[in-house]
Amino acid sequence: MSVTVVGSIAFDAVKTPFGERKKMLGGAAVHFALAASFFDDVRVVGPVGDDFGEAELDVLRRRGVDVSDVERVAGGETFFWAGEYGWDLNSRETLETRLGVFADFEPKLSAAARESEVLFLANIQPDLQRAVREQCTGAQFAALDSMNLWIDIARDSLVQTIATVDCLVLNDAELKQLTSKPNMVRAAREVLSWGPPGPRAIIAKQGEYGAALVTADGFFSLPAFPLEDVVDPTGAGDTFAGGFVGYIAAHRGDAADEQLLRRAMAYGTALASFNVEEFGTERVERLTGDEIAERVGELERVTHFSDAEPVALRD
Amino acid sequence: MSVTVVGSIAFDAVKTPFGERKKMLGGAAVHFALAASFFDDVRVVGPVGDDFGEAELDVLRRRGVDVSDVERVAGGETFFWAGEYGWDLNSRETLETRLGVFADFEPKLSAAARESEVLFLANIQPDLQRAVREQCTGAQFAALDSMNLWIDIARDSLVQTIATVDCLVLNDAELKQLTSKPNMVRAAREVLSWGPPGPRAIIAKQGEYGAALVTADGFFSLPAFPLEDVVDPTGAGDTFAGGFVGYIAAHRGDAADEQLLRRAMAYGTALASFNVEEFGTERVERLTGDEIAERVGELERVTHFSDAEPVALRD
Repeated sequence: MSVTVVGSIAFDAVKTPFGERKKMLGGAAVHFALAASFFDDVRVVGPVGDDFGEAELDVLRRRGVDVSDVERVAGGETFFWAGEYGWDLNSRETLETRLGVFADFEPKLSAAARESEVLFLANIQPDLQRAVREQCTGAQFAALDSMNLWIDIARDSLVQTIATVDCLVLNDAELKQLTSKPNMVRAAREVLSWGPPGPRAIIAKQGEYGAALVTADGFFSLPAFPLEDVVDPTGAGDTFAGGFVGYIAAHRGDAADEQLLRRAMAYGTALASFNVEEFGTERVERLTGDEIAERVGELERVTHFSDAEPVALRD
Repeated sequence: MSVTVVGSIAFDAVKTPFGERKKMLGGAAVHFALAASFFDDVRVVGPVGDDFGEAELDVLRRRGVDVSDVERVAGGETFFWAGEYGWDLNSRETLETRLGVFADFEPKLSAAARESEVLFLANIQPDLQRAVREQCTGAQFAALDSMNLWIDIARDSLVQTIATVDCLVLNDAELKQLTSKPNMVRAAREVLSWGPPGPRAIIAKQGEYGAALVTADGFFSLPAFPLEDVVDPTGAGDTFAGGFVGYIAAHRGDAADEQLLRRAMAYGTALASFNVEEFGTERVERLTGDEIAERVGELERVTHFSDAEPVALRD
């Protein structure tokens, strides 16, 4: 079975206090696909220009990702993003965005992509996301990411699109913005009420602090994996989503299980922690399953406490 | 045995999107003492002015807090802080600070206070904190909070003072600022190297995201308790510290135990979550031990995951 991701394939120029890359492989669909490839078959849908070569496709192919739905637009330029991060990586400035072939992107899905059991709609215009969702009639689990731009200029469409997926993955500040609710838990509960059928799981990404999961039944919060050296946060959210959705794809029968969603978040968190250790896809390209498993185990240890012998409290 | 806290006793004026109080009981030592009072005997050291009445002292007395070291300065005005919070409570603006009796505060400790086994130095000028630490020869566990102001204008003194305590509790951004290290884990490890003897535990407060604990042996991260209604975050950090230090005071023999520090953080987190539900001390004043215990149990549930059946990962 397989996971299909629709989204940006890009060249990024990134400057952080720890170094710089003038032009490297990036894009939400790329980061997602590399992470998800540790769990299941992955298929990438997205446009590239003439400047996108076999070397870049090979990064995906080496991880077993199916690139037959990558659309090469003759005479076009691949989506390009340039950004610079502040001293502790918590702020970033976009220096340049060239949409290139992404400006006129209309997703064309092969039969195989339409039949994928699991679908991830990376951050693109919400009308396009919805069009893809409607084509993917085989998808038993669909998740979606978005951004403040679409909340600003296409909120109605975004709301309509969110109602068609099982899971929304969004930065916590954007979740508040989307719902005009200043409280993350309330914001997530509001989105859970959208439908029918509407999403069953909301993930609030919290950057260096980790992520929270809100479902009808419960709440779960997981910190980011503690790292002493973070070099480039670009793609962390999409890598998280790839690990999360990939894990669910590998356990599709149980996608409504709260414990499964929690474990999926742990795998997403572990994957994201590797992504940020080096620029772009550099670290994840040479990652191994054993390294991921080790970090998930460590994450379990650094979050565990037990109040087995409660203290006597003084009223 | 007992916990002594030295710090501000204040009147606060607070405006949030959810309401306003023109003049209410506040101050770091007050929030700390109310929280710690659920665990052990607590003694407050700090100055108040003529405007501070029996009604305010009674709030502390009702929780069994010993106020005999509260120093009433004749003709003086109690420390006053006024602030306003932004829409999602993540930003705040100080509208007014009147130091009043705090301007010339020189802590005078009774014999009982000097002999306390546990000491909390709330955020005051670091020379004063060190002077108190040196007087408290009986303290087996001392913790300290500070703020960016002292990093800016008295860093050398603050560094010297931190080396005399067992535990530093600081906002994560201030921890980075203190050490000029952009990474929280590295910043904490840097402080762990200060001494001798130097602190054995660093707690990075992360506001709505929770808190992290860094020791020589390990790392622990705990999210804030998930709340749908946060009304006033003022005093959350000091309430957390009161729960944390109070729990350690009630288990003094084991203060080097990583698992004990983790449980202490859970109690601190639970206490803080009540504090922010209403203005000032309003919620904690009528809090019960059962409510705290219930929330600690819930915190255990919302942070727990187990990767008991690891997935097969594809290399």
